[in-house]
Amino acid sequence: MRRLPAAPDWMRSYDRATLADDALAALIVTLMLIPQSLAYAILAGLPPQAGIYASIVPILLYALLGSSRVLAVGPVAVISLMTASAVGGVAAQGTADYAAAALTLALLSGVILLALGVLRLGMLANFLSHPVISGFITASGILIAVSQLKDLLGVPSGGHTLPEMLAALVRGLGAANPWTAVIGLTAVGFLVWVRRSMKRTLIARGVRPRLADMATKAGPVAAVVVSTLAVTLFGLDARGVAVVGDVPRGLPPLTTPPLTLELIRALFLPAVLISIIGFVESISVAETLAARRRQRIAPNRELIALGAANIGAAFSGGYPVTGGFARSVVNADAGARTQAAGAMTAEALALSALLLTPLVHDLPRATLAATIIVAVLSLVDLSILRKTWRYARSDFVAVAATIVLTLLLGVETGVASGVVLSILLHLYKTSRPHVAEVGLMPGTEHFRNIDRHAVATQPHILSLRIDESLYFVNARFLEEMILHRLDRRPEVTDVVLICSAVNAIDFSALETLEEVNRQLAERGVRLHLSEIKGPVMDRLARTRLLRELSGKVYLSQHQAWTDLTHGRK
Amino acid sequence: MRRLPAAPDWMRSYDRATLADDALAALIVTLMLIPQSLAYAILAGLPPQAGIYASIVPILLYALLGSSRVLAVGPVAVISLMTASAVGGVAAQGTADYAAAALTLALLSGVILLALGVLRLGMLANFLSHPVISGFITASGILIAVSQLKDLLGVPSGGHTLPEMLAALVRGLGAANPWTAVIGLTAVGFLVWVRRSMKRTLIARGVRPRLADMATKAGPVAAVVVSTLAVTLFGLDARGVAVVGDVPRGLPPLTTPPLTLELIRALFLPAVLISIIGFVESISVAETLAARRRQRIAPNRELIALGAANIGAAFSGGYPVTGGFARSVVNADAGARTQAAGAMTAEALALSALLLTPLVHDLPRATLAATIIVAVLSLVDLSILRKTWRYARSDFVAVAATIVLTLLLGVETGVASGVVLSILLHLYKTSRPHVAEVGLMPGTEHFRNIDRHAVATQPHILSLRIDESLYFVNARFLEEMILHRLDRRPEVTDVVLICSAVNAIDFSALETLEEVNRQLAERGVRLHLSEIKGPVMDRLARTRLLRELSGKVYLSQHQAWTDLTHGRK
Repeated sequence: MRRLPAAPDWMRSYDRATLADDALAALIVTLMLIPQSLAYAILAGLPPQAGIYASIVPILLYALLGSSRVLAVGPVAVISLMTASAVGGVAAQGTADYAAAALTLALLSGVILLALGVLRLGMLANFLSHPVISGFITASGILIAVSQLKDLLGVPSGGHTLPEMLAALVRGLGAANPWTAVIGLTAVGFLVWVRRSMKRTLIARGVRPRLADMATKAGPVAAVVVSTLAVTLFGLDARGVAVVGDVPRGLPPLTTPPLTLELIRALFLPAVLISIIGFVESISVAETLAARRRQRIAPNRELIALGAANIGAAFSGGYPVTGGFARSVVNADAGARTQAAGAMTAEALALSALLLTPLVHDLPRATLAATIIVAVLSLVDLSILRKTWRYARSDFVAVAATIVLTLLLGVETGVASGVVLSILLHLYKTSRPHVAEVGLMPGTEHFRNIDRHAVATQPHILSLRIDESLYFVNARFLEEMILHRLDRRPEVTDVVLICSAVNAIDFSALETLEEVNRQLAERGVRLHLSEIKGPVMDRLARTRLLRELSGKVYLSQHQAWTDLTHGRK
Repeated sequence: MRRLPAAPDWMRSYDRATLADDALAALIVTLMLIPQSLAYAILAGLPPQAGIYASIVPILLYALLGSSRVLAVGPVAVISLMTASAVGGVAAQGTADYAAAALTLALLSGVILLALGVLRLGMLANFLSHPVISGFITASGILIAVSQLKDLLGVPSGGHTLPEMLAALVRGLGAANPWTAVIGLTAVGFLVWVRRSMKRTLIARGVRPRLADMATKAGPVAAVVVSTLAVTLFGLDARGVAVVGDVPRGLPPLTTPPLTLELIRALFLPAVLISIIGFVESISVAETLAARRRQRIAPNRELIALGAANIGAAFSGGYPVTGGFARSVVNADAGARTQAAGAMTAEALALSALLLTPLVHDLPRATLAATIIVAVLSLVDLSILRKTWRYARSDFVAVAATIVLTLLLGVETGVASGVVLSILLHLYKTSRPHVAEVGLMPGTEHFRNIDRHAVATQPHILSLRIDESLYFVNARFLEEMILHRLDRRPEVTDVVLICSAVNAIDFSALETLEEVNRQLAERGVRLHLSEIKGPVMDRLARTRLLRELSGKVYLSQHQAWTDLTHGRK
């Protein structure tokens, strides 16, 4: 297996059978993408065609540059929500300024992703812990679902946080449109049934599994077609059912994102968050799908490809994009074998934009809202709360805080607080390291915790195993811990710090150890170190600590024990 | 030795000899404190008497509540500079609003310190690493010295950052007052000589060491007296030499800090920084002096005592205070044995405020500037750059960045950036942990790095010792590292992760290990764990990882080796 296929690699070994597989995958994905793209653009507060445009040029650029063979790039739910939140801060929905700001946001995200890729800083995504990502995705799913209730029921609404949205919904409920509500709720019921039971029901009635599977995937398309026909036949748009309306025919336009200093300043931080969240989402999808086929993903190349895709979106009437889970899975399941499937999807979407847009005129927005709600409910996973509660409280706190803050304060504050909190919790945990006093396991050369095992000790030796790297956050703890234990054990003449789990000692900890050495010497107590790791010793060798140490440095704790017990006799 | 003497403890065992020692110490400290307090108040942009007031009530409150027997609380250089920077942002120097805002700043700092103490959050101070503190103190010393050049030379100036100050100085140089410059530069020269050579010179000329020592301490007082007399005798104030001027006679006034929402919002963050920097400075001084006498400091009680001292300052015409190094050392050296010395210093200062203030009318500001410059130059310690450069580049970067940012952007931005940077550097270091492939040291049960030692290995076993706790920042690295090594070693059937240095596994790392286990299983490779620490195992025991692990958990790496080598034969 080659590790990192170079981008245009797949082109060389391309043959007719691969082409047929890729073409079929492209057709299926296109059918799914049209309503989804319209829906996500509306979620982002943009005209519906922006979603189609954002699916064409970005897919092509990703196919040229990306390292995943099946990742499908385009508008996704969470990034659309974040776009609405960011752009909503600088312009009013429905204005030309709003659409222009979305272009700028895509350009900024693209440049940030590209820069991270060129500087090989993909590791920045690691600052998002799994609990923070899970909590953020879950809370975003809830926010998106609630934001769609207004289209589902035909009520006026708004807001970017849960309290704002709920308050607006409650105020607007009186103005609900009954026809819209019937279409919306029926569509939700139908789509839930499609997702949960349709395949099973069809198979039980004798339909072949493969056909049942395809019928299930066509479910959302059926909802779109039926509800559109209902509007056209019964003239429901005249009765207040909101429809997609006129979508201009044509290929994606060439657009230039405005770059005023004011706009860049207002959108920069949101663009950073969108870039990192988008990258994390995309690479998780890419790696999950690659692992199934034993392919590998190159994170820094992904950053560059996603950066190019977003810059492409900025210049072709789109908005921020990333690799989406649903569309990529459908692409992979439909049999896509290379990036050519992505290129063909782009072509099919371009054709649709040229020819098919009049067909969606009567498509009710309530149906689109229903498809979004059913899609994002699968993002909501509250089991993470239970799992983290059982495993570690600090992870639970990170999840819970991220969910609550995202719901109450919005996506940007929510995810930023989650990141900061998880870092502080990590530092807090390492600020009071586990320290075990150890003794000799009789008959062995092993030393174990005196509280967990029956071990031999010597009254004049205090052997402490420090289970943490020593650095500024816990340096003072170390000093106080040693002096505190000595206060209770005045007979101790030798302290041994066992450093087998000390993976690093920073300058603050070094100075603290020098201070501890001085203070112990004043009390007539010697300080010894044992089992220092290679990389730590390389550093310490150059320091005053080792020159001034009142005791010795032992390779193993057993040597220290033997020497100090023996020396005493 | 008792660990934590309760505050009023020293009162019970108080006797006549202790009283005499304390009284002498109080007199010496008072003589030193009068010019110093005036000077620091001017540095903070306040009327000179604010410095005296800030030294009276706070000292009394600290004596009642603090845990150090010799710490002297009052205005200090760095906190005065930070006060000027914070209050300068909300009011113009010399106005009543300015002095009022300084009271509010002291109140906020006091409340924050008190809250940290009550919540036992003294550990927050640990987020300031030694390099950040050193860098910040050094940069502050430079800023303070430069800020005093205007008074020293009698030129108009201003600004809170080095470029601003230097630009203002250069612009103002033409307006320098020659008499002021003569007094200022002479005073600097004299004080440097006092500090560097006076004691040695006197002893060399036959003066007894104890007398020489006292003469050295009286040096600054001599500079004050001589330059004041010079102004009075030659009428230099009429020739443009700036003097302290009228200082109202009387005890500290009862003041009420204004508490508008706007003021609180503007001063809150600076107050947090002042509290933490002040606490760190104070506790370092207290611990250094306590260690000499084998006494102990209680950090949370220190927070409460410093909080009370600052609240006291807010209600008695002062500004933020903390335990100062110079005054505490003088207090200790002068023979102070209990907090009674502090109380007597407060009384002596109160008497001075009542009776002696007319005497300082003709004291030139240039002399005060000279005493500050000579005092703060001892704060400037650039050797920390060399030390950290040798020991660890990440610590060097933290020092250098803190110094440069404090000089260029001011105290608040400088110290905040230093803290954030040192945390990020720490996380970055742990994001790519050291991983050693190990083999058996022949004839022992020990396993060592195959790159450092001649050890036995087996082609089908990959034994990796991970030298870091596993958590969200390095979880992805772990996954990639294992898969990468397996790609180069297709003959491996068993991977053993040696966890002797893994002090914690968070939820993100747990999910990553589950994923690694799945991916290895798909390749037909088993994953084993060995030498898991007690606390980590307690957590893992409840997880799916251990239920689904394709391999085994071994207590020791030697067991794993024996089992896997044996099973193969």
